Amino acid sequence: MKKAVLIPDSFKGTLSSAAICGIMRERIAARFPGCEVCSVPVADGGEGSVDAFLTALGGEKVCLPVAGPYHESMQAFYGLIDGGRTAVVEMAACAGLPLVEGRRDPGRTTTYGVGELILDAAARGVKKIVVGLGGSCTNDGGCGAAAAVGVRFLDKSGRAFVPVGGTLRDIERIDLAGKSALLRGVEIVTMCDIDNPMAGENGAAYIFAPQKGADPEMVRMLDEGLRHLGEVIRRDLGRDLTEVPGGGAAGAMGAGMMAFFDSALQMGIETVLDTVDFDALISDADMIFTGEGKIDSQSLRGKVVIGVARRAKKQGKPVIAVVGGSDLDMEGAYKEGVKAIFTINRLPQDLSVSRFQSGENLAFVMDNILRLL
Amino acid sequence: MKKAVLIPDSFKGTLSSAAICGIMRERIAARFPGCEVCSVPVADGGEGSVDAFLTALGGEKVCLPVAGPYHESMQAFYGLIDGGRTAVVEMAACAGLPLVEGRRDPGRTTTYGVGELILDAAARGVKKIVVGLGGSCTNDGGCGAAAAVGVRFLDKSGRAFVPVGGTLRDIERIDLAGKSALLRGVEIVTMCDIDNPMAGENGAAYIFAPQKGADPEMVRMLDEGLRHLGEVIRRDLGRDLTEVPGGGAAGAMGAGMMAFFDSALQMGIETVLDTVDFDALISDADMIFTGEGKIDSQSLRGKVVIGVARRAKKQGKPVIAVVGGSDLDMEGAYKEGVKAIFTINRLPQDLSVSRFQSGENLAFVMDNILRLL
Repeated sequence: MKKAVLIPDSFKGTLSSAAICGIMRERIAARFPGCEVCSVPVADGGEGSVDAFLTALGGEKVCLPVAGPYHESMQAFYGLIDGGRTAVVEMAACAGLPLVEGRRDPGRTTTYGVGELILDAAARGVKKIVVGLGGSCTNDGGCGAAAAVGVRFLDKSGRAFVPVGGTLRDIERIDLAGKSALLRGVEIVTMCDIDNPMAGENGAAYIFAPQKGADPEMVRMLDEGLRHLGEVIRRDLGRDLTEVPGGGAAGAMGAGMMAFFDSALQMGIETVLDTVDFDALISDADMIFTGEGKIDSQSLRGKVVIGVARRAKKQGKPVIAVVGGSDLDMEGAYKEGVKAIFTINRLPQDLSVSRFQSGENLAFVMDNILRLL
Repeated sequence: MKKAVLIPDSFKGTLSSAAICGIMRERIAARFPGCEVCSVPVADGGEGSVDAFLTALGGEKVCLPVAGPYHESMQAFYGLIDGGRTAVVEMAACAGLPLVEGRRDPGRTTTYGVGELILDAAARGVKKIVVGLGGSCTNDGGCGAAAAVGVRFLDKSGRAFVPVGGTLRDIERIDLAGKSALLRGVEIVTMCDIDNPMAGENGAAYIFAPQKGADPEMVRMLDEGLRHLGEVIRRDLGRDLTEVPGGGAAGAMGAGMMAFFDSALQMGIETVLDTVDFDALISDADMIFTGEGKIDSQSLRGKVVIGVARRAKKQGKPVIAVVGGSDLDMEGAYKEGVKAIFTINRLPQDLSVSRFQSGENLAFVMDNILRLL
């Protein structure tokens, strides 16, 4: 084996994708000294996504002060990759749930800082901005971020304001006229792996606001606000986003990215594969290792292993999936290009026991896969 | 892959070696149609050993009435393999613990029937007899079996009797003069995987008699009997077997086989490998699959996987071990010739949960190993 590409998802709750890459790399180095190893820890858009892209591709981390969840000034960051042509923004950097521990309130928090990060990147002349959703403390439908780039939200007295979750229903009109010219010609792609719509019983408020600190009364209020926002967007911007899958992601930041930034929502793994130019990366690879916490026979969509396998299959490259658990019938995955699936469970132990040995167990199965190659 | 040899141990408590062979064979047939598959379910000497040899090699099952554990007449059997040149006897056929359910008493049960089976095989002109220990209900030091082939045990009044566990201490003299001439020139090999000596705190009585129904008082009495037997053997037969590892196997049948039948004690897997002529069997094989319930880094001795690997290594044949669980550091096993080890734990589940899916899980990992080959 002369070149291996590592592109695992995290094993939720046990191993980060970066840690998995590290272990895989070490075992390959031990078994195949001199083998080139490319690590692409998969970012899901949430916390750590910028670092993941920088690990995979190299680049620069730009740090700057922006508005935090409560409009306080805080130090945040984004990544510059691809020779400065692409920026990667993770909203968790300035609108993440860990930033408001002890003061969670999705009725008051804002994504304003995310818009500032996007604008700063645009001002540097990037051609593309990848925005990662996930891990947010907000429910503002992306209005904060939009306001930061010049979108104006007017109340019934015609006064501009920056809507938050609790004031979405006060929006009477949306005006894109003042949107920064810096964003013209910049492709914006939003990473989004969930299907929830903006509002309703499967919407952002009902499904995700409770973990952000909303009680049932606030959930109802937030949901009404998002429903109202959807209607104003339809009326003023001419786009009906109320039922779009993923519109409800990250407190309806998904819908906001579409409405205010003309962004496409894209599966995280597809974004990663595009951004790292996976097709070129594997063109001279002998083997690709991927993995995820649990691979199942049904929901193949948006899964890292399947996304990787589909691309690899086009070039006839073998993909080995190392997983925490698997369904029995994986014919679907094999057909998509997965060569073989191995689980890391070295002993018949419950996850509550084995999770503390996940690293060693991963190393063990990697050793034995490599011994077989 | 044109030829595969399957030689797994059982996964204790979940899958028999025959069942494992069946699953492995099916998966190989699905992936490599036309591949020749030789199944050698490994016998450990206990119940099912005769069937295991017959499955591996073909042959004939001879059924005949012999003495049961309480000297009652019962139908038992042995196997004839290798064109009738070798017989396989499992002592469990007429001295097994399941035969005395509800009336367990290691002070009174006998191995007499085992001697009758051996004698019948010898009378057919076999050149070799393999005797499997294990699963016994006896503690007679093999005296019953010896009596059946003409060995005389005399009490202090000079009267011959058939000693059982409770009367071993009455043996004053052992006389081999009357031992059947049919046994001359017949090689007898005894399969034995345990190390316990005849007597003492690690001996047959203290370690194994309780599960055969002995209370602490009886254990002491049985141990004294075995100690006495060891002394008489030393004095009358000129062999000190009191400390020999394995002498305590199967109620000290191990020692009895050595003393009265001139048998060697041999690791079960070595006996199987010799008996099936493993070296010839694998000479044109592409791959060997073995396995066991748990492979550990320490006790490699007598383990099926290691025994198989050592032989395979001499011919440079790759051995893949499929196991229920493994220690982390298996360098020792790799050095002995194990190419790779894979565990069947498809999900992070405790054995109490996963054991009911052992078959499906084995099939799953076999499929994926075969996909990688």
